[in-house]
Amino acid sequence: MRPFFKVKRAQDIFESLGDVKPLGSECVPIRDALNRILAVDIISGEDLPGFERSAVDGYALAAKDAFGASEDQPTPFTIVAEVKMGEMPNFGLTRGECAPISTGGMLPKGADAVVMIEYSRMVEERVVEITRPVSTLENVILPDDDVKAGQVVLHQGTRLRPQDLGILAALGISQVEVCNKPRAAIISSGEEIVDISQRPTAGQIRDINSYTLGGLCTAFGVEAIYLGIAGDRFEDLKRLIEKGESQADVVLVSGGSSVGTRDFTLDALLSLQGVEIVAHGVSISPGKPTIIARRGNKTLWGLPGHPVSAMVIFDVFLRWLFGKLCGLSKPAEYTDHVIEAELDRNVESASGREDYIRVKLTHSEGRRLATPILGKSGLISTMVEADGIIRIDMNTEGLYGGDKVKVRLF
Amino acid sequence: MRPFFKVKRAQDIFESLGDVKPLGSECVPIRDALNRILAVDIISGEDLPGFERSAVDGYALAAKDAFGASEDQPTPFTIVAEVKMGEMPNFGLTRGECAPISTGGMLPKGADAVVMIEYSRMVEERVVEITRPVSTLENVILPDDDVKAGQVVLHQGTRLRPQDLGILAALGISQVEVCNKPRAAIISSGEEIVDISQRPTAGQIRDINSYTLGGLCTAFGVEAIYLGIAGDRFEDLKRLIEKGESQADVVLVSGGSSVGTRDFTLDALLSLQGVEIVAHGVSISPGKPTIIARRGNKTLWGLPGHPVSAMVIFDVFLRWLFGKLCGLSKPAEYTDHVIEAELDRNVESASGREDYIRVKLTHSEGRRLATPILGKSGLISTMVEADGIIRIDMNTEGLYGGDKVKVRLF
Repeated sequence: MRPFFKVKRAQDIFESLGDVKPLGSECVPIRDALNRILAVDIISGEDLPGFERSAVDGYALAAKDAFGASEDQPTPFTIVAEVKMGEMPNFGLTRGECAPISTGGMLPKGADAVVMIEYSRMVEERVVEITRPVSTLENVILPDDDVKAGQVVLHQGTRLRPQDLGILAALGISQVEVCNKPRAAIISSGEEIVDISQRPTAGQIRDINSYTLGGLCTAFGVEAIYLGIAGDRFEDLKRLIEKGESQADVVLVSGGSSVGTRDFTLDALLSLQGVEIVAHGVSISPGKPTIIARRGNKTLWGLPGHPVSAMVIFDVFLRWLFGKLCGLSKPAEYTDHVIEAELDRNVESASGREDYIRVKLTHSEGRRLATPILGKSGLISTMVEADGIIRIDMNTEGLYGGDKVKVRLF
Repeated sequence: MRPFFKVKRAQDIFESLGDVKPLGSECVPIRDALNRILAVDIISGEDLPGFERSAVDGYALAAKDAFGASEDQPTPFTIVAEVKMGEMPNFGLTRGECAPISTGGMLPKGADAVVMIEYSRMVEERVVEITRPVSTLENVILPDDDVKAGQVVLHQGTRLRPQDLGILAALGISQVEVCNKPRAAIISSGEEIVDISQRPTAGQIRDINSYTLGGLCTAFGVEAIYLGIAGDRFEDLKRLIEKGESQADVVLVSGGSSVGTRDFTLDALLSLQGVEIVAHGVSISPGKPTIIARRGNKTLWGLPGHPVSAMVIFDVFLRWLFGKLCGLSKPAEYTDHVIEAELDRNVESASGREDYIRVKLTHSEGRRLATPILGKSGLISTMVEADGIIRIDMNTEGLYGGDKVKVRLF
């Protein structure tokens, strides 16, 4: 029986893997680019909207001509022509003239403001009374109000949101350079594991980790390559790991990474030429029996067989790693789905390791409460019941009921 | 020029559309089911794991036999056989006997606990000393600890997460019944709008809303059907709306819904037989010039042309509607991406309408600050700059710097 070696803290692992290089990039249509990560800065080649545009429905005019207008003493204006949408007006305004304009219409020459239709009344066919003064440039969008030529509108490393696609569209960028999707090869190992299409006999269970890990990959924008079950035979496992390494950037083997005599993952990894074992054991609970190995820019992970432990390790390390591989500028994207809650009972924690505790969220009298779920990490049902996890720091011995905690939703 | 009619509050609109029927369902492989919404309750047909299982690496034995064991006075046990993974042990234990067992192995008859390997030492080839007592069932997962036969493991209306796929896999459910993806037909209207492949001339702008709305649909799990630009000609628009209605559950027309003379959306909608206008104008800012119409279970939306307004209306109403159509059990899924922050300046708000304010988040001295972005709703750049939005209630006249606000991230 092999002892653990190189049990490492999370921080040391981030440092050991900190130099992984981002993957290459590809060009995709913006319709397909949601949630992809920008591989370049996007610099505008033009001003937007590019012309003086009305922000409201109303009358374009010169602001000084409406000076002093009021309900009681409205200022009459002569309508010279109507602004047509999508066209440059082929007329200009002189003193006392105005032009009806719709939202988004281009201001005619001689106009520097738009009075909202609510502050006007028609008195004759070509005459309108304005009942309120207007400031210069009021209700006008200037040619570079939205975007200035030369401006960086989106930064490399941004995960593209709907509005980001919108600004690309506004600039006429129909294809965008995004980081290649990382690929993760997923292997389950363990002689007790059977495919979900099989009926397990006593002593066997169905493969859970391929689906939880595959789902986590998909959710992050990683392509999951399902390689099936290795059955804890050394040669099987080695062959699948090599296959995974040839097809993917990251190989995830779950099961077979504790110190049991039947755990071949470490042996299979050590048999690969030039492999470096970054960690055998991590100071995280659940998740301690994790092996991290590396060959060049590819990383090979022996994840715990317990479904909860494997998910926690994915959450702590693999989200971070995939962020690095994609050049994500906020790899601590972590914060995006973190909410505050109040712990509703005490939780103990061993010093010297990070503890991740599943919690269920409830509301009571306006407060959001987090209830710890303390089942064994082999029970997937505890993860189904949970709404998120909280982290207890390495140097903290526990938390008290009433403590504010940050819950990462998943 | 037509006046607004039926300006409605959000709550009235939710009530008017509250009886939309959920869509039908389809069966998909669980690998493709992430984020889909369950159309049925999932009831387990079996106990999981289905047998007594070790949660650790160690020795299976009868707890009573190790009573009083300690470092100084260890209890010797005879190893009778090793538990093989994935098999039912073909032996049993009698008094003073134990069997090496790996995590996930099945307990042999006569064993009711597992001592962790850390609390043992080999003294002879077939003799191990146990150095600590163990409770009955310690480190043992009972046959129904994870799931009980007959238990509802996942409820109809759940949006499937990675761990939910895991529990389906655990139960051998490889295909799952999920709600059909809602389909949204997306139309941009306005004579000033050109396709993003075209170079706009003065007075024209490129189509932004097709991409922002398409992205919002995709993010929610709605199939976006892009029907292009209607150009504000009544017949064009009517034809595209009818096409959208024949292909989709929801038709989204952006632009052309304010009171400008050139706004054909209302006319086009009114020309459809049996249509009901649910609202013309909503008491939401930005987003007031919204038309909501309905024929049977299909809804037809005239969204504002301003990109920010259209996104706000989508966020308030269409996420809710798509949740209804999918039978989502938490249509106020809203809460999932809401975080608390502290407003860093005063914000005014008109009474009698709900105001949605874009905010940028920053951190300062451990506090999360939300800075309002007050640009015009025609500027897509303001939405790109923002991290989320806050809502100011209809009966609130504004918020003060220092107020705690809930920020919905997007």
